[in-house]
Amino acid sequence: MSETRTLATWLVESQLDSIPEDVRHEALRALVNYVGCALGGARDEAVDIALRALAPFFGPSTARILGRPERIDPLHASLMNGISSHVYDYDDTTPKNYSHPSSPVASALFAYASVNRVSGPDFVHAFILGFEAESRVANAVYPAHYDVGWHITGTSGVFGAAAAIGRLLRLPVQQMVWAIGLAATQAAGLREMFGSMGKAFHPGRSAQNGYAAALLAKEGFTAGERGIEGPRGFAAVTAKAYDLSKVTARLGTDWDLRANTYKPFPCGIVNHPTIDGAIRIHDEYGVTPEQIAAVRLRVAPLVLDLCNQQRITKGLQGKFSVYHGAAVGLVRGKAGLQEYTDAAVNEPAIRRVRERTTATGDTSITEDQARIEVELTDGRTLTTFVEASLGNLARPLSDRQLDAKFRDQAVLALPAPQVDEVLSSCWHLDSTADVREFVAGTVPATVSAVR
Amino acid sequence: MSETRTLATWLVESQLDSIPEDVRHEALRALVNYVGCALGGARDEAVDIALRALAPFFGPSTARILGRPERIDPLHASLMNGISSHVYDYDDTTPKNYSHPSSPVASALFAYASVNRVSGPDFVHAFILGFEAESRVANAVYPAHYDVGWHITGTSGVFGAAAAIGRLLRLPVQQMVWAIGLAATQAAGLREMFGSMGKAFHPGRSAQNGYAAALLAKEGFTAGERGIEGPRGFAAVTAKAYDLSKVTARLGTDWDLRANTYKPFPCGIVNHPTIDGAIRIHDEYGVTPEQIAAVRLRVAPLVLDLCNQQRITKGLQGKFSVYHGAAVGLVRGKAGLQEYTDAAVNEPAIRRVRERTTATGDTSITEDQARIEVELTDGRTLTTFVEASLGNLARPLSDRQLDAKFRDQAVLALPAPQVDEVLSSCWHLDSTADVREFVAGTVPATVSAVR
Repeated sequence: MSETRTLATWLVESQLDSIPEDVRHEALRALVNYVGCALGGARDEAVDIALRALAPFFGPSTARILGRPERIDPLHASLMNGISSHVYDYDDTTPKNYSHPSSPVASALFAYASVNRVSGPDFVHAFILGFEAESRVANAVYPAHYDVGWHITGTSGVFGAAAAIGRLLRLPVQQMVWAIGLAATQAAGLREMFGSMGKAFHPGRSAQNGYAAALLAKEGFTAGERGIEGPRGFAAVTAKAYDLSKVTARLGTDWDLRANTYKPFPCGIVNHPTIDGAIRIHDEYGVTPEQIAAVRLRVAPLVLDLCNQQRITKGLQGKFSVYHGAAVGLVRGKAGLQEYTDAAVNEPAIRRVRERTTATGDTSITEDQARIEVELTDGRTLTTFVEASLGNLARPLSDRQLDAKFRDQAVLALPAPQVDEVLSSCWHLDSTADVREFVAGTVPATVSAVR
Repeated sequence: MSETRTLATWLVESQLDSIPEDVRHEALRALVNYVGCALGGARDEAVDIALRALAPFFGPSTARILGRPERIDPLHASLMNGISSHVYDYDDTTPKNYSHPSSPVASALFAYASVNRVSGPDFVHAFILGFEAESRVANAVYPAHYDVGWHITGTSGVFGAAAAIGRLLRLPVQQMVWAIGLAATQAAGLREMFGSMGKAFHPGRSAQNGYAAALLAKEGFTAGERGIEGPRGFAAVTAKAYDLSKVTARLGTDWDLRANTYKPFPCGIVNHPTIDGAIRIHDEYGVTPEQIAAVRLRVAPLVLDLCNQQRITKGLQGKFSVYHGAAVGLVRGKAGLQEYTDAAVNEPAIRRVRERTTATGDTSITEDQARIEVELTDGRTLTTFVEASLGNLARPLSDRQLDAKFRDQAVLALPAPQVDEVLSSCWHLDSTADVREFVAGTVPATVSAVR
């Protein structure tokens, strides 16, 4: 049997109770992380612009966007969810294929489930299946596909959205094959868009296009039967080397959700060990900014290639400054979205520590490590060595750390009490009777009548 | 200056009166051919299915689909126009890059102009610009891009739609650059879909996505600045060899519309010389089916590789039967959509001639040639040799032949008097005050209230 048909059959026949408990819990963790990111980005300019540009084309206002008051049609809602959840580059990553897997799948699912009655178990099940389908397609073409310049989040994401929505639409196998084919033939997204809004457009468009693929297939719109593996299919066309066996090997036994990671900090991942160590010193020693005389970093040489900006004035520049990462970790004990605003970058205490920080590249330090030395005004020196950076597979964020990350983002869209309600509901998505209520709960409670 | 910005600047600054008269006339020919194809395919099942699947998501019903009574939003109308105009593989071809160039551009433009007031000159100008942009992007990546498996009609088409709609939206250069970038990052369409509805989906989706790219860019949604030529841009990612100079060389001097061709027959192009010769014998000698004792074809060997089906019962099979092509040419003196129905394939007179036809591969005959020998029951033998097949650049369809092709298709959607009105209006699109009236005129005048 072909890879496309084998995958389609598995998607149609999968039973939730045969999925291991740890995978189902990891799905909840991914969804908590995703919803936090979607709320954090919901008010970003990119979402505002997309809403403004496309509003004249919205269908009946049946659906909801996570964290926004507007009601629009579900296909456009999936686009908006995708943009908001990826716009700060803070969503999850699967290191084995470098995709950001949750956004395309969950963006389509939450849009769908804001309109249609979907039970929590069905929702989580569809999410797990979509995640797995997408990540396996990505595994098959990684790294050649990514290296040539595809933004794999968009190109593989459309498969995940089609699979997840196809499952909720209860597509039979033949229609699921067509849904996968229609996903394959819409797979797009270029790394040339990095640094522009076009990057966040990718998971949004892949959510919307995968959703549409499933709708079309359900009504009998036909597609090639071998969208993934055919001689002119997704793998052969987009990767000079690929391994199709990764699409179907140990389906239902191995789960890529187990290989998912969550960024603790919304900045370049090479800064993470430094920030991690700085927070550790902040928390363990309770140092105040005034006590800090000098900070000395020893980091992997790549860090200085990528993040050597010290004299900065913009939040966006902070993401590429290992000095800023050290400073916010030491001064605030955290590095969330609030630490990468223009205001944070220009805050005198942070600026002072940033400017007293020096960094040395050291080939004996891996990209997952950092050594931090803080010299205090009283002459003492505090030192820490980060062996493996927080958020990596070896040191995953705890559920409580995911809570903190969620809150840090969600407050940008919602008042604090509502943040806690949404967070608590999100951890219980797998037992919700109707996910519509969850989505409705993410909408800002107080909406001004004046625009 | 980069290729993307050079192209964008040209699109913004072009003046219609600096475009040569023959190019403007070729644009009308392309539009007549396009509208005929859109009307011919308007009632195809693929359009019905797409309408049914996506209807719950349609925005305000402001726009019209060519040849259909439904009113839907303009983005979805561009999708439907694209499907109908390509579904019979009867639309135009640019042999230098094997794209079907008009469908993505015109499908978006007619949808846009069914809602917004656009003058005929502005419409034709935008069409010429979109066609040129798309065909030049295709030239730059052809043949490597096509050979690896991209359906170049979809992948280059999205650039054409973005350029044409961007022009009508009067985008400044920076926004046009972003529109091109957002087109580049949505470029998709796999040849693996050939033989399914997915193929016709490509020009439709590229029309819709290019249109959306222009809308987003207009409102300030940013994209990579070097969507075409960047190291992770369209050319580098989708073609192992490419020539970026073809995007911008002699812009405004050379025009790819001059290299456009129109299929005289809705079947595999390798059958065209045979059909052409058969029609010639029909017309010159006035033979009746009963007079035909045997037909002997000498054709390029490739014809028998691709189109050697003789015992057939379905219209679709007829497209891959050189015997059927000879038979309909001899019996009916034409080979339009009506000759590729199940009924035509099973018509006794056509079947009888088809079964008395033999074909021999001959390496001395090019793919553009055919020799036909018809033995009559009275012992005479009629012979013709087709040196260059009708519809090729060397022997283009005349305007009157385009009329006949248009009528043959348009009668599937419209009553005969309306067909003539639309055809006449289409030849005068360049002097229409408001293209809305033209589009409204393509809608079936009598709509049954009962569905």
